[in-house]
Formats: sequence, structure tokens, C-alpha cells
Amino acid sequence: MKSILIGLPGNEKLTKELAQVINAELGQAEFRQFPDGENYIQIISDVVNKRVVIVCTLHRPDDKLLPLYFVSKTAKDLGAVCTCLVVPYLAYMRQDKRFQAGEGITSQYFAALVSQFADSMITVDPHLHRRSKLSEIYTTPSQVVHAADHISQWIKENLEKPVLIGPDSESEQWVSKVAQNAQAPFTVLEKIRRGDRDVEISVPKLETYKDHTPVLVDDIISTARTMIETVAHLRKAGMNPPVCIGVHAVFAGDAYKELKDSGVEQVVTCDTIPHPSNKINLCELYKDFLLEKVL
Amino acid sequence: MKSILIGLPGNEKLTKELAQVINAELGQAEFRQFPDGENYIQIISDVVNKRVVIVCTLHRPDDKLLPLYFVSKTAKDLGAVCTCLVVPYLAYMRQDKRFQAGEGITSQYFAALVSQFADSMITVDPHLHRRSKLSEIYTTPSQVVHAADHISQWIKENLEKPVLIGPDSESEQWVSKVAQNAQAPFTVLEKIRRGDRDVEISVPKLETYKDHTPVLVDDIISTARTMIETVAHLRKAGMNPPVCIGVHAVFAGDAYKELKDSGVEQVVTCDTIPHPSNKINLCELYKDFLLEKVL
Repeated sequence: MKSILIGLPGNEKLTKELAQVINAELGQAEFRQFPDGENYIQIISDVVNKRVVIVCTLHRPDDKLLPLYFVSKTAKDLGAVCTCLVVPYLAYMRQDKRFQAGEGITSQYFAALVSQFADSMITVDPHLHRRSKLSEIYTTPSQVVHAADHISQWIKENLEKPVLIGPDSESEQWVSKVAQNAQAPFTVLEKIRRGDRDVEISVPKLETYKDHTPVLVDDIISTARTMIETVAHLRKAGMNPPVCIGVHAVFAGDAYKELKDSGVEQVVTCDTIPHPSNKINLCELYKDFLLEKVL
Repeated sequence: MKSILIGLPGNEKLTKELAQVINAELGQAEFRQFPDGENYIQIISDVVNKRVVIVCTLHRPDDKLLPLYFVSKTAKDLGAVCTCLVVPYLAYMRQDKRFQAGEGITSQYFAALVSQFADSMITVDPHLHRRSKLSEIYTTPSQVVHAADHISQWIKENLEKPVLIGPDSESEQWVSKVAQNAQAPFTVLEKIRRGDRDVEISVPKLETYKDHTPVLVDDIISTARTMIETVAHLRKAGMNPPVCIGVHAVFAGDAYKELKDSGVEQVVTCDTIPHPSNKINLCELYKDFLLEKVL
């Protein structure tokens, strides 16, 4: 079956790259808004009997959801065999339980909705916390791919004497894997809690790493609070300015500027959300899915 | 069954009025956004075994759709028997066919989506153009109510010597009904087309109405282009400055200011979309539906 790729506004770069990676047609579609704010969608390319790959990252999803849903429905209406979503960043993964009475479990509701929008889906490192698999909430067949190897590769190629820093024991497994593939050492910060607001952080084997470049890695950088705090702890401990790496450049409000100004060497992200900090291209991750070699 | 009303942000006034009209509980809920733009919803009131009436007008629907969906799902999750939507203005009614190849028929797609959000629905004068009934696209049981009688009443109580003006023959049926109930005369403008951009408008029985207040009525005032043009035609014909009445105060961009400055006596709307021009309260229209006397 022939595939055709359609990117939603803001996803042009990735869509073009993916079309090249799998040697498929880059589809033409028009997305615009009427003066009253309603969305208009027109698929200009022929989609009859084709598999339509829709590329749409879901950072700040409210404005993106209707165009995404509309383009998928339109494709099917026009004779597409199936639609599949490339969602580099998947929103609404955090509210995965009722923390307080009366709360909506939005990760579940959002999943039920988006599952209707396509026949299959691929996403990068969704924030699975209390769930082990995406299929627990997404009913549409989904594939999860991971940025870890690409991050390791970037570290290996770009940094001298890196040391990976895990902010807590929870991060150990992931950070250690990134470190191993980057052929770099890693260490996990130790927290000594002296009271509710008085937490002291110590860096194990500090003396060994004083001439290294600390590397902080996290899946989502949103408010960047945790990272900025960790940067301050490392400075206090006498380490070099760290390199901060995030998979998803969410950056709420002024978070990017605040993190850059917090005494870091640089801030680097993967390209799941278009952002000036994007340095790690994840294009290859989608290849097998797009060539229908998985699912 | 007990009813409880929950209004989405921006619908507080109507929700409170409706609770009074049917003597039902005004529910408490929290709607807010996380720093990354994701919506948080918490229903504070007890909804167990109750009918939850959700009040949400859908002007500029993109930002409203997820909170609306989430609150409905949350209510059901928390033990509500059913949810019903009060949607004073229903969006996406205009793209009701494929005008050009490849276009999405968004009115149909939107209807399929919103129909999942509640067990029943009421709305005021939806823009039914090529469809005769809302149930042709909405699968959830729906009731349509009309603002015409309230508009007539407002004209009768507030204007001296009104004459209703229908901008074209298509509007005749509706405008004549409003006129009749307002005990006012009406006339329909006659268009004499001299070329693509050269249309002359004449007012039948002009001399009879020179001392009247012309009243223009439309369902949606969006860009206000049509109304502003008609205002210009009436001025050219030597009539008094008109009163412009709209059911739905959509007002895209600067449309409200432009219409006010176009030489009108005043601009008046119903309260389906909160706006400074709201003067006609439609609260009573929802009463029978809310008391389960219909559907």
C-alpha cells in the first residue's frame, strides 16, 4: 500500500524528513481558520486507497486537536484505507489517577478520544508513570519508541569527559542506560532531607568528577524547576556547569530562558517539539513503523 | 431525579440563572490549566445519582472542547446518571457540504464528536442551512429552541415605530414572523444586479417607512459584512439609522466596533455568547428541557 504524509501546521520539517526517510509522497493539505475561529481543512493530494500518515506533535494540544481529528476524518471520507498518527510528543500523560476527590483522570479520557482519531499511532517516550504500557489507555494500536540511544550518541559525539547525573534513584535505570551507551560514567544524587524545605544534596564520588561535564537528562522539561534546582546543587558542590538534555522541549512560560540563565553550559533537546534548543534528530525512530515493519 | 448545573468558565451568569429558573443546585467545579497548557478539572459538588447539566457555549470552540469533554467524562466517572449539555451557541454548523474537492465536512465531524460528550443537548437557533434537522448530524438527542419570540418582545418593548428589514428573500419567512409577533411591519430589500460588483438595493414602500426605525435581524453576526452593507444601503435610501439585532454575538475581530461605527442606532444581541451587546435574555427557553418536559 502506498503511504502519503500530511503534516499539521508546525510539523512541516519533520513531515518532510519522514517522507524522505521512507521515500513516500509528501501530501498537500490546507489548514486555516475562518474569522470566527473555526477550522477549515482541505486535503489537496489524492489519498484514495492510500495509507495516510498524519504528523502532529501534541504540545499545547487544545488548538491542535480539532484540526488533527478533522484531517483524519476527511482522509477517510476521501477514500484513504487507513490513517496513522505520528505524535512525537503525547500530551495528557500526567493526570493518570484521581489524586484528590472529584478530579478527572484526563490521561484516560484523552486517550479514549485520540484513539478514535486514527488506526494506529507512534509516539516517543510518553510519560508513563503509574502505567506500564500505552495500550492500557490507548485502544488504537500504538508503538512507543525511545530517544535514549540518540541522546547517548549525541553525548558521545559532542561532549568531552561527560558524567551523567541522575537527579534521584527513580531515574537510575534510565540514566545508567544512556550513560552506558554514551560510554560515560554516571552517578545519582543523594538527598538528605533535614525538613520539609531543607534538602541537602550530595554528589557521590564528587572528587572523581570535578573536571567532568555533568549531563542532566529528563524526559520532559516543562517548568524546568527540578532541573534548575539540580543545577544549583551541582554548582554548590563545585562541579562544572552542566549540559541539560530533555527529550520533550515543553518549556512552560519563561522556563527555557530561566534554565539557560541558571548557570548551565547548554540546553539540548530532541526534536519532538519544534524549539530553538532542538539538536537531536529522531527521524530514524519512526522508520520501521512507517514502513509497517512493526505493529 | 435531582439535577445539578455546572458551568464552564465564561458561562457563570447563565448557569446561575438556569439554576434559579429550575430551582436546582448550582454545582462547584474547578477548571484550570497546568503550566504546560493541559487542562485540569475537578468536580467539587456531589454528583452521585444526579443529572448533570453542563453549560458551555461553543463560540471559538477549540479551547472549550477538552474541558467540556473532560467534565462530562468526570461526572459520569463520579457516578452521575447522565449528562446533558446546554450549548447556547453551537459551532461548526456552516461547513455542511464539500464545496470544493478535498474539503472536510466539519459540521458532520464536529457533530459526531460532540454527540459523544453528553446524553442530551439543547441549543438555540443553530445555523441549519442545507440541513433541516439537527438530528441529521447529531446522534445525541437534541432540542432546538428559537430566539424569535424574545426578539419580537424586545422590539415591542424598546422601539418606537419599528420596521423589520429582511436583507433578502431567503430571510422573508423568519423576519416576517419576528415582525408579526412584534406587531411591526416588515419589508424585504430588492436587489437589482447590474454586474458582479454593482448591486443596487431598493427599499419597497420606502416613503411609508421614512420616519420608522429600521430593524435588521440575523442569526449570527460574525464579520458583520452583510449587515454593514445593508446599513449603507438603508442610509443611501434615506432611512433612519437602523437597530441591528443578532441572536449570536460571534463578532470576529473588530466586527463589533465596525458595525457600531457604521451608522447604526444600536447593536443588540441575545445572550447566547456573553458580549457587551447582550440585551435579550433567553433563560426561559431552556426551562422545559431542563425540567425534562421535552425529549
